[in-house]
Amino acid sequence: MVVSAAASEPVKPGKCWLVGAGPGPADYLTMKAVKLLQTADVVVYDDLGSQDALGFVPPGAELVYVGKRGGRESIKQAQIDQLLVERCAEGRNVVRLKGGCPAVFSRLASEVSALRAGGIPYELVPGVSSALAAPLFAGFPLTHVSLSPSFTVLSGHDPDTTDWGALAGLPTLVLLMGGRNLPTIVTRLRDTGWPADTPVAVVRDAGLPEQRVWHSRLDTVEADTADAGSLSPCVMIIGRVAESGLLT
Amino acid sequence: MVVSAAASEPVKPGKCWLVGAGPGPADYLTMKAVKLLQTADVVVYDDLGSQDALGFVPPGAELVYVGKRGGRESIKQAQIDQLLVERCAEGRNVVRLKGGCPAVFSRLASEVSALRAGGIPYELVPGVSSALAAPLFAGFPLTHVSLSPSFTVLSGHDPDTTDWGALAGLPTLVLLMGGRNLPTIVTRLRDTGWPADTPVAVVRDAGLPEQRVWHSRLDTVEADTADAGSLSPCVMIIGRVAESGLLT
Repeated sequence: MVVSAAASEPVKPGKCWLVGAGPGPADYLTMKAVKLLQTADVVVYDDLGSQDALGFVPPGAELVYVGKRGGRESIKQAQIDQLLVERCAEGRNVVRLKGGCPAVFSRLASEVSALRAGGIPYELVPGVSSALAAPLFAGFPLTHVSLSPSFTVLSGHDPDTTDWGALAGLPTLVLLMGGRNLPTIVTRLRDTGWPADTPVAVVRDAGLPEQRVWHSRLDTVEADTADAGSLSPCVMIIGRVAESGLLT
Repeated sequence: MVVSAAASEPVKPGKCWLVGAGPGPADYLTMKAVKLLQTADVVVYDDLGSQDALGFVPPGAELVYVGKRGGRESIKQAQIDQLLVERCAEGRNVVRLKGGCPAVFSRLASEVSALRAGGIPYELVPGVSSALAAPLFAGFPLTHVSLSPSFTVLSGHDPDTTDWGALAGLPTLVLLMGGRNLPTIVTRLRDTGWPADTPVAVVRDAGLPEQRVWHSRLDTVEADTADAGSLSPCVMIIGRVAESGLLT
């Protein structure tokens, strides 16, 4: 009787928090991210740089990995969207944990549209983006009073669809996910007028113990990073603000 | 005798951490920022959106306000630089707390150069930038698979020195410190080809209880925000990704 009565009542949906996990180490999680992880019923997470954040999740919670690391079979975005809606519809609170900040290259619109369509309450929680953190870990800021009045963040994942011409007059580019396409990126930049001696900083595994930084320039960055093996994940900062001598 | 002997020994300098405080509320401090504040000897801080971060500072620590809020007499950058070096040289550990993230419009180069010249060890600690957080608080990301393949962060503080022509072909601009210069900014954007119906979102006091968001467009944003009184501090997001209907 009790079971039957309970089953006939509509379940109040849980809430979904779409949360930035920062560059990886627990140190760069926000207080809010930690609190949400500590009380989550379900955590749906990407490739995060490190597993530190998962250490805050209570033992009874469900952990679902939905990473899309390049080169291997991976879950489709529509399946992730559906997963979030389904778990919340069961009345569970879900933390959707994304590397860096959900404002930047996180497919947020797809997931939020699905939550809205499903009538699921949700909240967007910013995190520390590697686009801003990586240059600091390498020792320099993205803006500089004379050298860098602005910076532009873009993806290097698919350089053939990028409008390189529109970027030609800018002082500073921050390229995420460009490691695999470095030769094409260098060619496109050179073709659109970036000087051969434009400083380039490459930061791989930003903020992690295995972080490695190359200070180079456009015409030599391929050779300088040739010994790197994989350049993923990396942040590339292109422009005079990336000069290693800036702060000396 | 003891005093004299101690006085003759060189003091080991303290360390200076240049730390992002995020948009204001304690929730958006990183774990690392909190730990550093809890063990600081000296905290040198700007206008921070809220005073939450200072609540973590131990009672015996020295608090030095060096904010540069527009319109009133303020401390010069060279004095801030000197203050950091002097306090560290006395053997004290200093947290230099900056609103948002030190990578973005924080005069980092000046302070770091002074610390290096003074032989003071230092570390750069990223935070949550309002440039990325404000759009999330307003409900949308900065990138979108079709509408916004990149975003450009710039200051609206001095629009007469900005190279608006270089920004003309870009999908998304994020303007910080532009509240006082909104009319000039709108004029420059219209003059460089941004359509009248370009969506504009204005987020004042991002992340704070008093946050207010306007969803508007280039040709009406001045009228739409005319009742705002001051538009400082605000983040303006300009481009199709700022459309209020994006996620519906």
